Amino acid sequence: MAPNIDINAQTATDMKNSRARASIDLQTIRDYLFAGRSNWETHVKLENVLRKESLFDKSNKEFIGRVEAYRRALAITRRLTELQRLHGWTKEETAQATSILSEVLPVTLHDLAFEPVFVGQGSPALMAEYWGLVTHKGIQGCYLQTELGHGTNVVRLETTARYLPETQEFEIHSPSLTSTKWWIGGLGKTATHGIVQAKLILPGGTDMGPHLFLVQLRSLEDHSVLPGITVGDIGPKAGGGMAATDNGFARFDHVKIPRKNMFSKFAEVTEDGRYIKPVNPKHSFGGMMYIRATMVTSAGWTLARGITIAIRYTTVRRQGELDANGLERQVITYPSTYYRLLPILSRAYVFIELGRQTTKAFSSLKERIGKGEFDYLAEIHASLCGLKVLVSTATVKDLETARRALGGHGYSAFAGIGRLYADYLPAVTYEGDNFVLDGQVVRAALKSYKSLASDPNRRLGSHSYYLRLQKDDAIKRPVVDASTWKDPRAIIHLLEWRAALAVKDFARTVDEPDAGINQRLARAITEAFVATQVGEMIAGLSKLPQLEAGVIGDLYHLYLMTTAEEAFVDLFSLGLLRHGADEVDPTRELRLAIKANCSQLLPNAVGLTDSFSFSDWALDSALGVFDGRVYEELWRRVQLEPLNQTEGTPGYEESLKPMLQQGRMIASQAKSRL
Amino acid sequence: MAPNIDINAQTATDMKNSRARASIDLQTIRDYLFAGRSNWETHVKLENVLRKESLFDKSNKEFIGRVEAYRRALAITRRLTELQRLHGWTKEETAQATSILSEVLPVTLHDLAFEPVFVGQGSPALMAEYWGLVTHKGIQGCYLQTELGHGTNVVRLETTARYLPETQEFEIHSPSLTSTKWWIGGLGKTATHGIVQAKLILPGGTDMGPHLFLVQLRSLEDHSVLPGITVGDIGPKAGGGMAATDNGFARFDHVKIPRKNMFSKFAEVTEDGRYIKPVNPKHSFGGMMYIRATMVTSAGWTLARGITIAIRYTTVRRQGELDANGLERQVITYPSTYYRLLPILSRAYVFIELGRQTTKAFSSLKERIGKGEFDYLAEIHASLCGLKVLVSTATVKDLETARRALGGHGYSAFAGIGRLYADYLPAVTYEGDNFVLDGQVVRAALKSYKSLASDPNRRLGSHSYYLRLQKDDAIKRPVVDASTWKDPRAIIHLLEWRAALAVKDFARTVDEPDAGINQRLARAITEAFVATQVGEMIAGLSKLPQLEAGVIGDLYHLYLMTTAEEAFVDLFSLGLLRHGADEVDPTRELRLAIKANCSQLLPNAVGLTDSFSFSDWALDSALGVFDGRVYEELWRRVQLEPLNQTEGTPGYEESLKPMLQQGRMIASQAKSRL
Repeated sequence: MAPNIDINAQTATDMKNSRARASIDLQTIRDYLFAGRSNWETHVKLENVLRKESLFDKSNKEFIGRVEAYRRALAITRRLTELQRLHGWTKEETAQATSILSEVLPVTLHDLAFEPVFVGQGSPALMAEYWGLVTHKGIQGCYLQTELGHGTNVVRLETTARYLPETQEFEIHSPSLTSTKWWIGGLGKTATHGIVQAKLILPGGTDMGPHLFLVQLRSLEDHSVLPGITVGDIGPKAGGGMAATDNGFARFDHVKIPRKNMFSKFAEVTEDGRYIKPVNPKHSFGGMMYIRATMVTSAGWTLARGITIAIRYTTVRRQGELDANGLERQVITYPSTYYRLLPILSRAYVFIELGRQTTKAFSSLKERIGKGEFDYLAEIHASLCGLKVLVSTATVKDLETARRALGGHGYSAFAGIGRLYADYLPAVTYEGDNFVLDGQVVRAALKSYKSLASDPNRRLGSHSYYLRLQKDDAIKRPVVDASTWKDPRAIIHLLEWRAALAVKDFARTVDEPDAGINQRLARAITEAFVATQVGEMIAGLSKLPQLEAGVIGDLYHLYLMTTAEEAFVDLFSLGLLRHGADEVDPTRELRLAIKANCSQLLPNAVGLTDSFSFSDWALDSALGVFDGRVYEELWRRVQLEPLNQTEGTPGYEESLKPMLQQGRMIASQAKSRL
Repeated sequence: MAPNIDINAQTATDMKNSRARASIDLQTIRDYLFAGRSNWETHVKLENVLRKESLFDKSNKEFIGRVEAYRRALAITRRLTELQRLHGWTKEETAQATSILSEVLPVTLHDLAFEPVFVGQGSPALMAEYWGLVTHKGIQGCYLQTELGHGTNVVRLETTARYLPETQEFEIHSPSLTSTKWWIGGLGKTATHGIVQAKLILPGGTDMGPHLFLVQLRSLEDHSVLPGITVGDIGPKAGGGMAATDNGFARFDHVKIPRKNMFSKFAEVTEDGRYIKPVNPKHSFGGMMYIRATMVTSAGWTLARGITIAIRYTTVRRQGELDANGLERQVITYPSTYYRLLPILSRAYVFIELGRQTTKAFSSLKERIGKGEFDYLAEIHASLCGLKVLVSTATVKDLETARRALGGHGYSAFAGIGRLYADYLPAVTYEGDNFVLDGQVVRAALKSYKSLASDPNRRLGSHSYYLRLQKDDAIKRPVVDASTWKDPRAIIHLLEWRAALAVKDFARTVDEPDAGINQRLARAITEAFVATQVGEMIAGLSKLPQLEAGVIGDLYHLYLMTTAEEAFVDLFSLGLLRHGADEVDPTRELRLAIKANCSQLLPNAVGLTDSFSFSDWALDSALGVFDGRVYEELWRRVQLEPLNQTEGTPGYEESLKPMLQQGRMIASQAKSRL
């Protein structure tokens, strides 16, 4: 018979015991994750302000429709702006506060796309008129690129901006239904102004391709949509994602804007309608690259949320076999569970650190571009494409793996992972569809490979450094044995070899590629780069105390091992791993090494998620509550469900009652006929 | 310059041209999918009735909250019952109509779980009193098994049913918060009666483990919840899935029910409280097995929906490179697209046919059990576990792959795949968590393996027939070369070998398994079984005309090839595939064969999805409309979005206006300070 225990008390005890088992110092790890104590202190300062705001309460979120969600998001935005001024937060602090808040807001693209275009491409005249309004949010901006019929292939956008020399205006026009701007964040209901990407048509009719133009969309008096413009919201999203954002559409019917509204820092149309070429079109690079760089960090913190929920819940959830105390086993102690979850934990850590390295690299790139140095630009561009694909693909997959590890309760909205997933999901298609980006990664690698073949002394950037391995045939391929998996450097080396050989193989068969090559190859290339980055992270751990460095090192090692495990097919097909004459399964050593590494990390699993330092308010998950009392929290939240606010059944009188009555009548007739 | 075309007209033309390219006869394929012309005619008859009902209109579905969705579902249910009587539909026809309707309804579990328990385990007395009410839906039933704290491990359920001999009653009781029944479909608001799984406690206090009891939950007068019972809805689901179903919770406070309410066809409690053992507990098997069997079919039709949308949209969506006419290429013509989509199409076809074979096999099993023949019961049970895992895992993954192939528009709720996904998602955890079921598959296989080792002459059932291969060491392992992939039988044989060797390898290392073994091994075992089933399907194609048999044969061949491709790691690690001395990539031949097969299928892709015969009403997807005019349909649906019903912005006055004004004030102050 089952021992008579109070499972609620047991969950709290399980959580306490798990914390007690941790060997690491949480503050050390936390400061590492936050890149320094002072960032953490800022975090605490900001969160203490945010949590006190009743507007920022999350308890009603799952029950409201889009209109209410939008209204709530606007109110939050306003309050956030007030708080910023009240507390004198810097731009960075406000960004950090927004990230802590973790709400979908309709104004995100103002900061992420609208403002940067002004900084990067606004002419002095445009800046003089608008910059104050942009930066102080006296206007709300959006960025109109994608059209109903055109996404990836920007060259085929249909919207036109025809220059009229007689009035010195551009005429913005949507010539067809499919030219309707679509998916534009903040456009549907919020934005007063938009940066419109449109084909510049010169007076003679010459199409100069896409350029950017500032168009006022709504009146600053009463927010009504201006004449000639049709604007609306594009409707609900898959899985109810991004409900509070007004992704919108817009059509322009010969809308006139002044000549200076063209973003013309680098290319210009003169008063009489001549086109002045950009000094160097590479200057206008950067906007989307910057967003992709930030996506690495945000993927890391999104995974951090998901994995905190999953590790906490599987720590207190007991199910199945009995342990020594006659209790069912904690779900996380099953190998099939921790083998799914701890690699996700490792990816959260890696992506957070990788994001830091990436934005740093991007900043220094921007500096160099500012000085007119464009070396490695194409390569870094391709690398950011690859990173964007890698982190977004992994994050979507991992969130669902984490959700599934919660068992049945993972399907409850109160578990919290469903919303993370639905809101994160578009990351695999926005800022460049992942499948298209893979092609860019492959093309860039092939180019590097060829230029290396024609000039063996060419200096390789860090993004194609792996190609050195096939430069010199004398370099021997690594021999894989049990010791390989114990040594992070050996795994990194192996992953570089895989990428190098895969590119070489592709170059040889480029005329008859198989249908999955772009995805496979882009992955191999990006994983080699990330592996070398992880190598640097491991080297950087020497700054930490030995114990904490060891545990995070184990996590990074796990990242490399599971990357290699996922690459088994490549390793085999490229001949880096072979089935020996001894008939022993050559995958077994790595698989057992992964299991051993996970077992070793397990006592610190809760500690490593605690170090992300999500408050219950920030995490907003019934299954991820800090104290482990998950069932009480589920019970509490269920009471808020609108269907439970009355005992009655909606539709009872008109549908259920007559149906039941009819059924009973027929049953009784049938009975009496017997 | 881009040619001046009307993209809307182009989409229609592209769709028409694609249809014209099909070589297959659609009616032949359709009749094959529907298992005969007469089923198809019934389908048409039913759909013609359903489509005319204004209640069954779907255009508002994406905009309503749960309360409204529930109310709508009840109204639909009532109307469906009326239509059934009006048109004299049989039970099978009603089930088919419900499937065509494809709506989440709160009454599903009445048919799927409540009624079958009556049939299978109701005593004659219980049947006499309730059967008419059950079958004519004079009462609405639910099935209460899962508890807040317990899912998989039924033995640990906490709810008790204590027998009181003095009054000849059972007392149903929930002793703790975690014993609260949870996730019960139809319980929250709809059900009047429930079958409660509870531990039977005899007067002496002996715990006889879980048994089933009928408990009335709500008054038949006014639907109010009966005394001692607390009932409610458990709240929203991940991704807004299953919104219209009232999955509920229930707690029982010493609720008394008459002795006859125990389902006692096989086990009984006498008036004075003695327990009469079940004749053969295997008789009570079957309920969950039946549901799992039907899940194969429903997975097939769910995939059919998703892939119809994806193939139609990628046929009319043009993007990227220019084709011979100066138009951008149809997205489906990119290898990276069709390589993702056509294997999904093959799985839809395989699962539909496999579901038919499975339910047939299950029916004959039931017959045999009825006659007291229990051979292969355990094996078929394990096999159904494996099938359930295989189809639900593949379907969730494929739906997301199909959604992603739609590019950015795939994230719109109007695309339709998001809802399919959210509603289907729980299939990976309900009716047995997939990770737990994998363990059962592995245990059963190991048992078969061992009993074969101890008795080499043991007759193997079809589910473990692959084990014959390691019975006789003299049988040579297959040699894989290019010809292997051209021959479906060779691939089936290879997949059987893979399963046989994997089980053998597992048996050898069972004391030190790696952490992913259950998932990997269960997959190998189930895929071997399914492969042999596909072999039978291919054999059965001889009944079709040669051309159609050839095309569906290609699809089945594709299924086998991509199964083998996904199994590369196993094939390598078990030594079935090897990197030869010639240094040629041994995966290349299969990959090119897959590409060639896909190219060959491509002209029939739209035809093969048209054969599923979804009307636009049934498919309910803007991107999957039959005529290809996707952009017009997106535009039409967007106009229905509640946010677009007024030009105004919700929250403008209270939030946005003051925020913008404040921003402008600050901007103007800053300017005047300059």
